[in-house]
Amino acid sequence: MDLLVAYDVATRDREGERRLAEVAAVCERYGVRVQYSVFECRLTATAAESLVVELEATILPSDDSVLIYRFPGDLRTSRQALGRRRGSGPAGPWIV
Amino acid sequence: MDLLVAYDVATRDREGERRLAEVAAVCERYGVRVQYSVFECRLTATAAESLVVELEATILPSDDSVLIYRFPGDLRTSRQALGRRRGSGPAGPWIV
Repeated sequence: MDLLVAYDVATRDREGERRLAEVAAVCERYGVRVQYSVFECRLTATAAESLVVELEATILPSDDSVLIYRFPGDLRTSRQALGRRRGSGPAGPWIV
Repeated sequence: MDLLVAYDVATRDREGERRLAEVAAVCERYGVRVQYSVFECRLTATAAESLVVELEATILPSDDSVLIYRFPGDLRTSRQALGRRRGSGPAGPWIV
């Protein structure tokens, strides 16, 4: 299973800086960094679950956001959001 | 067609700050912001092409990175990279 992991960690204090470093370290253990806060991972289902558990244990849900997209799949059903939500992508029929 | 757009713009100078604002403005015209530098877009094929053209015209390829993932699809074939590459995700058989 391939996963794309994107995260936004609130770094307005030292605790946030620590969480950012820890989230990156967790992702480094499971995948390859393709952008500053985006990782691609090729995992077994069990490893994917461990990744989610570790990320959930690391972030501050009220402040931080992690988005996990599982491939193959379509955008809405492949997306798992941890922590803070921001906007929500294409749910309805709007097409530009 | 659903797209996920993630970008890293180098903001070490004012020109970079300007590009970051412009990349965000382009994405705002085509989709919904789901993280600071991650957007989800539901587009026709024509609109998706226009988005790519606009992003290519905005970034500094040597410094900035845009990753576009098209859904549905599998990770490697759905990914289009504009500008600077960083690492490369699961190409081989490594599984954690």
